[in-house]
Amino acid sequence: MAVYTDVSAEDMADFLREYDLGDLLSYKGIAEGVENSNFLVHTTRGHYILTLYEKRVAPEDLPFFLALMEHLAARGLTCPQPVKNRSGALLGFVAGRPAAMVTFLDGMWIRRPSAAHCGAVGAALARLHLAGADFAMKRRNALSVDGWRPLYVTSAAGADSVQPGLRETIEREVTMLEGAWPTGLPQGVIHADLFPDNVFFLGDRLSGLIDFYFACTDTLAYDVAICLNAWCFEPDHAYNVTKGRALLQGYMSARPLSLEERACLPLLARGAALRFLLTRLVDWLNVPPGALVRPKDPLEYLRKLRFHRAVGGVRDYGVDA
Amino acid sequence: MAVYTDVSAEDMADFLREYDLGDLLSYKGIAEGVENSNFLVHTTRGHYILTLYEKRVAPEDLPFFLALMEHLAARGLTCPQPVKNRSGALLGFVAGRPAAMVTFLDGMWIRRPSAAHCGAVGAALARLHLAGADFAMKRRNALSVDGWRPLYVTSAAGADSVQPGLRETIEREVTMLEGAWPTGLPQGVIHADLFPDNVFFLGDRLSGLIDFYFACTDTLAYDVAICLNAWCFEPDHAYNVTKGRALLQGYMSARPLSLEERACLPLLARGAALRFLLTRLVDWLNVPPGALVRPKDPLEYLRKLRFHRAVGGVRDYGVDA
Repeated sequence: MAVYTDVSAEDMADFLREYDLGDLLSYKGIAEGVENSNFLVHTTRGHYILTLYEKRVAPEDLPFFLALMEHLAARGLTCPQPVKNRSGALLGFVAGRPAAMVTFLDGMWIRRPSAAHCGAVGAALARLHLAGADFAMKRRNALSVDGWRPLYVTSAAGADSVQPGLRETIEREVTMLEGAWPTGLPQGVIHADLFPDNVFFLGDRLSGLIDFYFACTDTLAYDVAICLNAWCFEPDHAYNVTKGRALLQGYMSARPLSLEERACLPLLARGAALRFLLTRLVDWLNVPPGALVRPKDPLEYLRKLRFHRAVGGVRDYGVDA
Repeated sequence: MAVYTDVSAEDMADFLREYDLGDLLSYKGIAEGVENSNFLVHTTRGHYILTLYEKRVAPEDLPFFLALMEHLAARGLTCPQPVKNRSGALLGFVAGRPAAMVTFLDGMWIRRPSAAHCGAVGAALARLHLAGADFAMKRRNALSVDGWRPLYVTSAAGADSVQPGLRETIEREVTMLEGAWPTGLPQGVIHADLFPDNVFFLGDRLSGLIDFYFACTDTLAYDVAICLNAWCFEPDHAYNVTKGRALLQGYMSARPLSLEERACLPLLARGAALRFLLTRLVDWLNVPPGALVRPKDPLEYLRKLRFHRAVGGVRDYGVDA
């Protein structure tokens, strides 16, 4: 976690002048976000987050992300709300980077989530899916099943250096999932990266969702499957069925899952584990010299993948078939 | 600049309970400080900075630093004010590290300081020296003339790999300065690291001084010499006499420099340049694997050192002899 781009006080003050947010009082680069540079900005009007979009975010995707946050916030979801500048634009430029100001959300992310936290996340994810139902823009998920073979090809040569046999395991998974991936399930806006560091709590109360920079149009139940991977495993990589049940019941309290969605959940969870195994593996094998970010362990997701391969059915996740 | 230690929401809330600062609303690791981990903490009572002291700060020095900030703030200097916990202590522990809460200061540090900024810094430095006059505690400056030979010895073997001849240049400087270093000048509390990133401004108004973790008891005019090095050179390493004059006149408006102090300034500035050349060189030659901080260029200070060696007298800094 790092700040990739330094912003001078002069440049920050110039940028702020395009907004109706009062005078600049302070700003601090914050050590959050692996992809972008974030600054906590204090003005005479309040606190805001300024995000500078770095190379890994495609500029053509930014209108989708910003319009989505605006759409969801307007429907009562607590997420960062993009602030329009005096010209009515959500997107500006600072230090040569596309940049956006959003409202600041209080709350902390939880390093060791409980079943209660998982239940709250499930419910919030369902509310996000419902609030996104009438969002008009579309964005293809580049990291869904069609994107996995290219990632496999990129990482194949180095995979066995991380763990012997990993290349073959991944190749077989990609091939199987390409053939079996469900296509007829309900689609819509998904967050696609709702990990614990993207969910804020005040006590047990969920106070906000952040980081919509992987959001896209995809199978809603796949988003649930990502959350099962992200929230319901213990540090020793064992699945915690109590947390899984809480997350799924929380979700279904706001948006019931159909029989088909539930039946597909083990396969979707397997795909989600493969997706994070692949992107982590690519990052692991491509640490640039002088990198400011330590890559995350890809093998965590190999262990989760093994769990999903071994389950007998959706009951093993803590919900009825 | 990095956050070295992660603090969980649970640990942060536990720590906050020792203080009368209300409930925790949010905290963010901030990308400031090369030596310590800093968090911007928002509670129902306001905004604070929590600093976790990492390995490079000696725990036995912390009472000096914290008492000094309290002393200076009580005398009207705008610097972070340590917050006492319910037991009346300034120092606590978070995540296994000594830690202190201080008040948050608005303001921005200036990447391209003007002569007006330099003048304000000079005046603030003098006010710091005056406010520190009745501070009872003492701390030896480990990075003054006695500390330079050990740093030279540590870096000697690698010095010529940075620039041919550097080893011999440094050895000669250390020897000369050990013989000529002035000992009879007025002493007191010095900041010892008043670089632009440690001085906050709101417009042209200086709004605060931060980072007292090199503060110590030493020659006051040496602190002025450090500031000349830190503030009055251009990006091409040329000395800007207009900025130097502004800084020195700002200082002398609050605390006049004696004839002796002025006469010694070129030598003190030469020593200050050597001090930063040496510590940067040691850091440059000892980048740990996986380092989160890129070392600063030591040769910037070799160029400044050359300027100080070539000056004819204190007039070259922009002040009468």
